[in-house]
Amino acid sequence: MSSSNANSFRAIDVIRKKRDGLELGAAEIEALVNAYTKGEVPDYQVSAWLMAVVLRGMTKAETAALTDAMLHSGEVLDLSALPKRKVDKHSTGGVGDKTSLVLAPLVAAAGVTVPMISGRGLGHTGGTLDKLEAIPGFNVNLPVAEFRRVLEECGCAMIGQTAEIAPADRKLYALRDVTATVESPYLICASIMSKKLAEGIDALLLDVKTGSGAFMKSQQDAAFLAELMVETGERMGKQVVALITDMDQPLGNMIGNALEVVEVIEILKGGGPEDLRELCLHLAGWMLQLGGASKTVAEGKQISAELISSGQAIEKFRKLIELQGGDPSVIDAPKRLPQAADTLNITSARSGYVNSMQCEQIGVAGVVLGGGRERKEDAIDPAVGIVLHKKVGDRVERDEPLATIYYNAQARAERARELIAMSYEITDEPPTKKRALIHQVIGKTGDKG
Amino acid sequence: MSSSNANSFRAIDVIRKKRDGLELGAAEIEALVNAYTKGEVPDYQVSAWLMAVVLRGMTKAETAALTDAMLHSGEVLDLSALPKRKVDKHSTGGVGDKTSLVLAPLVAAAGVTVPMISGRGLGHTGGTLDKLEAIPGFNVNLPVAEFRRVLEECGCAMIGQTAEIAPADRKLYALRDVTATVESPYLICASIMSKKLAEGIDALLLDVKTGSGAFMKSQQDAAFLAELMVETGERMGKQVVALITDMDQPLGNMIGNALEVVEVIEILKGGGPEDLRELCLHLAGWMLQLGGASKTVAEGKQISAELISSGQAIEKFRKLIELQGGDPSVIDAPKRLPQAADTLNITSARSGYVNSMQCEQIGVAGVVLGGGRERKEDAIDPAVGIVLHKKVGDRVERDEPLATIYYNAQARAERARELIAMSYEITDEPPTKKRALIHQVIGKTGDKG
Repeated sequence: MSSSNANSFRAIDVIRKKRDGLELGAAEIEALVNAYTKGEVPDYQVSAWLMAVVLRGMTKAETAALTDAMLHSGEVLDLSALPKRKVDKHSTGGVGDKTSLVLAPLVAAAGVTVPMISGRGLGHTGGTLDKLEAIPGFNVNLPVAEFRRVLEECGCAMIGQTAEIAPADRKLYALRDVTATVESPYLICASIMSKKLAEGIDALLLDVKTGSGAFMKSQQDAAFLAELMVETGERMGKQVVALITDMDQPLGNMIGNALEVVEVIEILKGGGPEDLRELCLHLAGWMLQLGGASKTVAEGKQISAELISSGQAIEKFRKLIELQGGDPSVIDAPKRLPQAADTLNITSARSGYVNSMQCEQIGVAGVVLGGGRERKEDAIDPAVGIVLHKKVGDRVERDEPLATIYYNAQARAERARELIAMSYEITDEPPTKKRALIHQVIGKTGDKG
Repeated sequence: MSSSNANSFRAIDVIRKKRDGLELGAAEIEALVNAYTKGEVPDYQVSAWLMAVVLRGMTKAETAALTDAMLHSGEVLDLSALPKRKVDKHSTGGVGDKTSLVLAPLVAAAGVTVPMISGRGLGHTGGTLDKLEAIPGFNVNLPVAEFRRVLEECGCAMIGQTAEIAPADRKLYALRDVTATVESPYLICASIMSKKLAEGIDALLLDVKTGSGAFMKSQQDAAFLAELMVETGERMGKQVVALITDMDQPLGNMIGNALEVVEVIEILKGGGPEDLRELCLHLAGWMLQLGGASKTVAEGKQISAELISSGQAIEKFRKLIELQGGDPSVIDAPKRLPQAADTLNITSARSGYVNSMQCEQIGVAGVVLGGGRERKEDAIDPAVGIVLHKKVGDRVERDEPLATIYYNAQARAERARELIAMSYEITDEPPTKKRALIHQVIGKTGDKG
């Protein structure tokens, strides 16, 4: 085994320094990231360094330097030719979180440009790309030139990470995934922010989830990550606001790729479940304010509500689908989306109130059905999923359906049924306290939404 | 990048558990070591795990399990057919530490079998194999059958680690070396003990060095490692005693491979420097006591001194050299050992007393001269080295020689001269306190030497 001795930079010195809890300089971090991206430093040195980062942490300066090095490992889009302000939103991931599909057309309809580069499902959480691909023909793999053309014509575009954007992140993420070094706020921050800052945006809204269905179970951990991301973005000259939002139960009533598109269409048409509508309007309000389309978040919410009731939001979504090669007829006939072969009701064993839901378990049930990947190489079944009839606080009678499973494989449905049934906690009394949808706002803003 | 999913064992689960500071079970550690040795788990997962071990530590049970797994990754010699007790000694490494070359023949002359498997120089410290190879023809790469034959005929044999012994250690050590995961008492313990316990010994004497020339600079760190090794050996049914000995200045007066053989010959003939003779007799006393050749350590020392003055010890060394293919005439004519082309005196800039020596720097000077390896692939020059004329406590006059450099390359000699000159601290008054040669004895023994 030979160590890498590229000129004056030695990976082992950087590993040792971090191992010993010392602060790394920006030049050291940049050298390590660049050498790794070029294949000059082997995986086994970087994984040791990543573990040292997980256990020793990083300063804010180190986190910013890592983000910067990862950002500049690839192409940084220059969208300055587009006259409007460019604003994106990023969610740390949850169950039933389909707000991106609502927000891109809705905010674009308000005249703010939304260049959105998203990811796939991760663990028990869904992914925007997987949901978009439930729409027949929808192409998330546009080259940069085509992405730019859709943006210009539509005001929004939704694609996956291209090979040109933050290649260091792709390589590092694959390594973290197999070395138990995913769970570090510093590494999560650098991974998210390096990709988002490569989009050529002016401002970014972060939706940091907390609760039983989030990666950050405690609000404290969520706030720590949110502050790190806001500060990192600000150091790079971007306006960044983070909302800590609730993920203690699934968002909306539908989980599963095609089912979530159905719910998106409902919201954009003015219907859909209360919690999802409220969060979408709130996030849209922030994006409009950040994008200069409204003076306040409240005004942004108001404008967004009007864009939905006037039909402009759903028409923007139709146009987006068209421009990215999808079948826009799903908007008028959601049944044209992939349909599961069978359904199965999960009924309540007793009467009472839904006191809590194990949200992560419900997400796992969605993966078990085939809606997510148990292994990287798994294909996704867009048709399967779960429709919730009861959520926290709801009254339920014995034998009344709690949820319906949409499935294509009996054995998977049985495993999912068990997970979902166990995830509902039914009590005699209703829960005493209702959890807020939005827990906290972090960022330099006078407006607290 | 794909993770390894060999049946129920998943490397990532073991990494995550150690990352989170939880105790691993013996089965988990064994599965990881076995899978790594077989190439079923990649380097990048093991290096992340090693870093987690460095930063999280291990319990004594985990350390013993790791040692056991590494020990059983290869062949464990069965020397039970040899009637006498088998005792070995291991040193954690120092500068000028040539005691192994004295002890193997000396202790064998007393009727204790010494099956010694040694290593090469590491960092600033010398290695027994490199020293033995300074003797023309001496072969340290004997196959196991030949090792056994020499042992039977001579009572001692000295070889390097074979491919069959603890292959897990060889693979892990190479990875640790390039991932800054060498410095962990748990990993050091497992590495040393897995190799030593594979020798088929009944008892083991550990010489754990402390001071400015040792890997463990503080006595506290040295004692921690010593206790870990003693307990690990005892858990495996071996009698183990550890001495914490001084390495705050070089041991003896000669540093460098051929020069150290010269000093070994002097000691075995009844001469040589006081500190080296005293430590050799003391270590031999312990080995005789552990080997059943004496009732007490004091008696063992006495017997050893007599074996030297009677000539039996040097004759045993002659026989060992012969049996391992070396030229025994070096014993009578040490000038037949490799000789350096030139010498250079380092003189004192002032009069006074040697108050202290930066022992590690003197070791580095030896490496710089070519006596050790700056990179793994470097060849060793057996002829070069340093002879010390002054050590701690000695009176020195201005312009009097402190040391002589034996060199083959002018530029190397200049670098070494600077290092050695800087390593001497000369003060007006002699040092107030003389450091003991032996600081502490650790192990289950009524005899404290």
